[in-house]
Amino acid sequence: MKYPNGQKNYTKNSSHDTARRGMSLEGDINSACKYYLDMDKANIHKKPTPIQIVKVDYPSRNKAKITEAYFKVPSTTDYNGIYRGYYIDFEAKESRSKTAFPFSSIHPHQVKHLKSVLKHGAIAFIIIRMVHYEIDYLIKAEDFILFYESTSRRSLPYDWIKEHGHMIRSRFLIPCDFLSTIDEVYFRSDKK
Amino acid sequence: MKYPNGQKNYTKNSSHDTARRGMSLEGDINSACKYYLDMDKANIHKKPTPIQIVKVDYPSRNKAKITEAYFKVPSTTDYNGIYRGYYIDFEAKESRSKTAFPFSSIHPHQVKHLKSVLKHGAIAFIIIRMVHYEIDYLIKAEDFILFYESTSRRSLPYDWIKEHGHMIRSRFLIPCDFLSTIDEVYFRSDKK
Repeated sequence: MKYPNGQKNYTKNSSHDTARRGMSLEGDINSACKYYLDMDKANIHKKPTPIQIVKVDYPSRNKAKITEAYFKVPSTTDYNGIYRGYYIDFEAKESRSKTAFPFSSIHPHQVKHLKSVLKHGAIAFIIIRMVHYEIDYLIKAEDFILFYESTSRRSLPYDWIKEHGHMIRSRFLIPCDFLSTIDEVYFRSDKK
Repeated sequence: MKYPNGQKNYTKNSSHDTARRGMSLEGDINSACKYYLDMDKANIHKKPTPIQIVKVDYPSRNKAKITEAYFKVPSTTDYNGIYRGYYIDFEAKESRSKTAFPFSSIHPHQVKHLKSVLKHGAIAFIIIRMVHYEIDYLIKAEDFILFYESTSRRSLPYDWIKEHGHMIRSRFLIPCDFLSTIDEVYFRSDKK
């Protein structure tokens, strides 16, 4: 087994620091990724939004202007990269509900993608921001998939998230410090 | 050291099968990635082209039409994913020159990116297609960077590519079978 343990250790603690948290989860994660890259801690990037380009104009010699294009449904998750030698893969989503994270927020082929990378040895998860409570959780893909595939519900209840999720702290310059959470969830040595 | 050896073992052999090779290197690599994914061998994807979206119209309620956008310079390589538990990262480029691969084909920050992921433990490389000879080579990022940073040349000579590169074979359904080359270059057990 690659990951020393998967026990959560601070989800019971409801205190959190959101003072420096920015406006959107994506913006906050991108800031964290940039910080990790600058500090040489990890190399994780958001993938560009997939777009179907239909028409391109060349108003001047060196400038291509796309004049017709459409958004495509992404076939993978939004973020991937490398940390401590491991392939990291995750999706990040906000929930505006007070009671749940709706499954409609995540595409079935993104779940399939998470399953696939897990099988190949990835550290894979979903980051969920409960907007109302201003708390971010890391949900291990293993845990998410187990619930997702065994339930007839159409959402992840907030109670489940609190119990199985791992809270992500906000720090100075790192509004969503998910690497620290990865350290605690996947790399913490089993001290008792 | 993670990788059992890095010796090349078949670059002296100039025979190759290009019978089923497609039109573009990108198309061939995408076909290979799809095959590996379907066969559950690896999960490697091309990243979408980064685009700066300026204007979006909504001609109908559910359809967003991008009417003004521009290509951005990519800050990472084109391909990444996971294979045998390892983070894989590479750039793929064609060279139409008979004698070299021009450094202008690869952005300096892509080289910086390869250096960074290597440092974090990635299997990182460049795939170069010498269009004139119809041969694809895997060049380990370590080898490429060493030459790139120590030369005053503006290209990688073809002789250097033949000597340090690892030929990628073309197989039935896998026009550019780079996983087999990864196996040979990074995972071959040291038999003598």
